[in-house]
Amino acid sequence: MDAWLHSRAEVRERRGLQRSATPQGTVIDLASNDYLGLSADARVIEASTQALHDHGAGARASRVVCGTNQAHQYLEEQLCLLTGHDSALAFSSGYTANLGVLAALGGPGTLMIFDAHVHASLRDGIKLSRSPAVEVPHNDLNAIAAALAGRTQPRAVVVLESIYSVLGDAADLAAAAGLCATYDALLLVDEAHGIGVAGGGRGAVAAAGLAGSVHVAATATLSKALGSQGGAVLGSTLLREHLVNTARTFIFDTALAPAAAAAGARAAAIVREEPGLAAALLRNAEVLAQRCGVAPSAGAVQSVPVGSAALAAEIATELRLEGVSVGCFRPPSVPDGVSRLRLTARGNLTAQELDTGTTAVARVLAAANSAAENSAMASINHGKASNPA
Amino acid sequence: MDAWLHSRAEVRERRGLQRSATPQGTVIDLASNDYLGLSADARVIEASTQALHDHGAGARASRVVCGTNQAHQYLEEQLCLLTGHDSALAFSSGYTANLGVLAALGGPGTLMIFDAHVHASLRDGIKLSRSPAVEVPHNDLNAIAAALAGRTQPRAVVVLESIYSVLGDAADLAAAAGLCATYDALLLVDEAHGIGVAGGGRGAVAAAGLAGSVHVAATATLSKALGSQGGAVLGSTLLREHLVNTARTFIFDTALAPAAAAAGARAAAIVREEPGLAAALLRNAEVLAQRCGVAPSAGAVQSVPVGSAALAAEIATELRLEGVSVGCFRPPSVPDGVSRLRLTARGNLTAQELDTGTTAVARVLAAANSAAENSAMASINHGKASNPA
Repeated sequence: MDAWLHSRAEVRERRGLQRSATPQGTVIDLASNDYLGLSADARVIEASTQALHDHGAGARASRVVCGTNQAHQYLEEQLCLLTGHDSALAFSSGYTANLGVLAALGGPGTLMIFDAHVHASLRDGIKLSRSPAVEVPHNDLNAIAAALAGRTQPRAVVVLESIYSVLGDAADLAAAAGLCATYDALLLVDEAHGIGVAGGGRGAVAAAGLAGSVHVAATATLSKALGSQGGAVLGSTLLREHLVNTARTFIFDTALAPAAAAAGARAAAIVREEPGLAAALLRNAEVLAQRCGVAPSAGAVQSVPVGSAALAAEIATELRLEGVSVGCFRPPSVPDGVSRLRLTARGNLTAQELDTGTTAVARVLAAANSAAENSAMASINHGKASNPA
Repeated sequence: MDAWLHSRAEVRERRGLQRSATPQGTVIDLASNDYLGLSADARVIEASTQALHDHGAGARASRVVCGTNQAHQYLEEQLCLLTGHDSALAFSSGYTANLGVLAALGGPGTLMIFDAHVHASLRDGIKLSRSPAVEVPHNDLNAIAAALAGRTQPRAVVVLESIYSVLGDAADLAAAAGLCATYDALLLVDEAHGIGVAGGGRGAVAAAGLAGSVHVAATATLSKALGSQGGAVLGSTLLREHLVNTARTFIFDTALAPAAAAAGARAAAIVREEPGLAAALLRNAEVLAQRCGVAPSAGAVQSVPVGSAALAAEIATELRLEGVSVGCFRPPSVPDGVSRLRLTARGNLTAQELDTGTTAVARVLAAANSAAENSAMASINHGKASNPA
C-alpha cells in the first residue's frame, strides 16, 4: 500500500493539486461558511455551554439506544419553526443526513435523478442507495422532466441543492416541485447554503412556499449559517419515522453532541427572530461580487474562475499573506472542472473589513491576470500556445 | 413515495421491529458507550467549554478551506500519544472516518476483505470504495488467508474491529497483522470499542504491539470511551497526507466542532494518565457478565441472546420502568440475526449501581425465560412447535 500512496502523492505534486488542512488565523474571513457570524455569537455560545454542562460532552450512544435528549428535541422543534417543515430529524453532520435519507429512500424501486453539480455527500448517498440513477445537466429542468417521464421504477427522487456550494447559483425549486407533483416523485432539496441565506433566512424551500408539501423534503446543515455542527432531514412525520427505523447513519451513529445541537437550535431561533441578518448578508455578497468583477450569485458564495489550479493556489496564498482568507477550489472539488476562488460574504462583515478584503482581492486578481496575459504573449512570440492545465 | 413509506411502517409494526429515538432519563445506565464516564467528567467539560469560547461553536468550513484550528491539532497529538500511532487525522464522526479511509484506499486495484460482523459504517465505506470485496466468516483467519493468497489485485485491505460492537468479542489482531505482512496487505482495525478499554485504555492495536507497523492502520471514535463526538484515522504520516488529499468525508465535510475536539483530546489525555480507569471498567464488566449468566466478553459490551425481537423489546421496556437502561438490539442491528440485550459496563459505575442494575436484569431475564418455557410447554401440549421469530 505504501508504494501506491507514494505514487499518488507524486501525481498530486506534479499537477499542483496538493491540499493541506489550513490552520485558521486572525484574518479577514472571505472563505468560511459561517454566513451570519453565529458561530461566535454570545447567545449561541451561552446555549451551547449550558447544554455541555447539563448533558455532558457526548450523546453517549445512538439515539435508538439511549442517545436522544432535550437538546435534540429542542433543535428539531426550532428547525421546524424556522423552515416550516412538519418534522425534523437531527444527524451528526449534514454529510450523514444526506447519506442517511438517500440510502433510506433508495433501492431498486427508486430512480434517483440528480443535478450534475450536487455535493459529494449527495453523490455518496446515491451510491449507497444502490438505486438506478440519472445525472442530469446542471439546472436542466427539461432533462429532469424527461427522466421522470421515462422512468420504469415505481418511485423517484429528484436531488437538487437550493443554492449550489461552489458556484453559488440557485435551482428553480418551484418548477422542479411542479414536475415532481406531476410525476409523483419526491423533490429532495439540500438547503446547506440556503438556510440562513434565502427567504429572509428561512431557506429557499420556504421562500418558494414548498415547506410542508407532500412532494418536497429537504436536508440542512447546522455547520454553515447556523454556526455549529450537525445536520437534519426536514419533511413529513412519516418520513421522519421511516428514517428513525431505516437510516443507517441515524441508527448506527452516535447522536449529535448536545452542545452542537443546542448551538444550532439557538442559532435557528436567532435567524427566525432577526431576518435583518440574512438581508445584511445579501447586501455584503453583492458588494463582494461587484468588487471582484463577477455577476452576483443567488447566495453568500461568489465564484471567480481562475486559469489553472496552480494559479488559484498562488492567488489564495498571496491573499493569505495579505491577511485575507479566500477559498481555493480545484479539481476534484469543482463541478465544472474549472479552478476558482470561492469567496463568501458574511452578514457581520464590517464595511471596513469588506473594503480592505475586496481591495486586496481585486489587486491580486488584476496582477495575476496581467501576468497571465504577458505569459500568453511571450508564448505566442515564441511560437507556442499557452496551455494552462 | 408516501404510500410506500406507509407500507414499510406496517411491515415493521407486524414484525415488532419499530424503533424510536429513546429519550435519556435518570436511570442506571447499562446501555450507553460512555465506558469511562468521561462525557460528564469535569475536566473534559472544562476543556470543551474553553474551546467553545476560544474558537466558536463550529469549525466554519472544511479543514482544507479554513477549518483547522488548534483544537484539531491538539486532538491529533493526544490521540497519537495515547495509541502510539505516528499520525492521526480527525473527522466529524467515527462513521465518516470509516467511510473516508475506506473509499480513499479502495478502487478496482484494492481487494477489501472484511469480517462478517463489522459495523455498518465499515460496510458502507467498502460500498463507497467500489472495490472488489470478500466477506469472511466471523473471526476466521483461514478465510482471510485464503482471500489474501488468492487475490488478483495489487493491493488488499483486511477490515476488522478490535472488539466487536454488538457481541463484545475480540479479533486476533497479531495473527491478522502477520497475514497482512506475509501478503503485503494493510490491516485496518476499527478501535471504536477498543480505545479506553483494551491495553490499559490505549487500545487493542497498542496492546498487540502493532501501533506504528507499516501494515497496520486504525480508526477511532471520540464518542464512546472518550465521551465526546468525532472520529479519527490513525496510521502513517503518508496515509494521513493521502487522506487530506483524497478522503471525501474529510475534504467535503465541515471539520469537527472545536468543543468536541477539545473534549476528546482531554479525555484521551486522562485515559493515558489514568490506566486504572480501564481496569475498573473491565472489573465491572466481569461482574455484569456473571450476574447476567453469560461468559465475560473481551470488552465493556456483554451480550445476552433473547428468543425474539418482540421479547427483547419487552424486556428492555420492563427494565426501563424499573430504572435500568439496557440496549435492545434486533435485526438489522445484529450481525448474526439473533435479537439480544446489549449491556455495557462503565468504569465509573458504583458498586451500588452495579448491584441494583444487575439484580433487576437477572430478575427480569429469569421471569422472561420462565414465561417462554411455559409458553413452549403449552405449544407442545397443543401439538405445535414453538417458533420464535
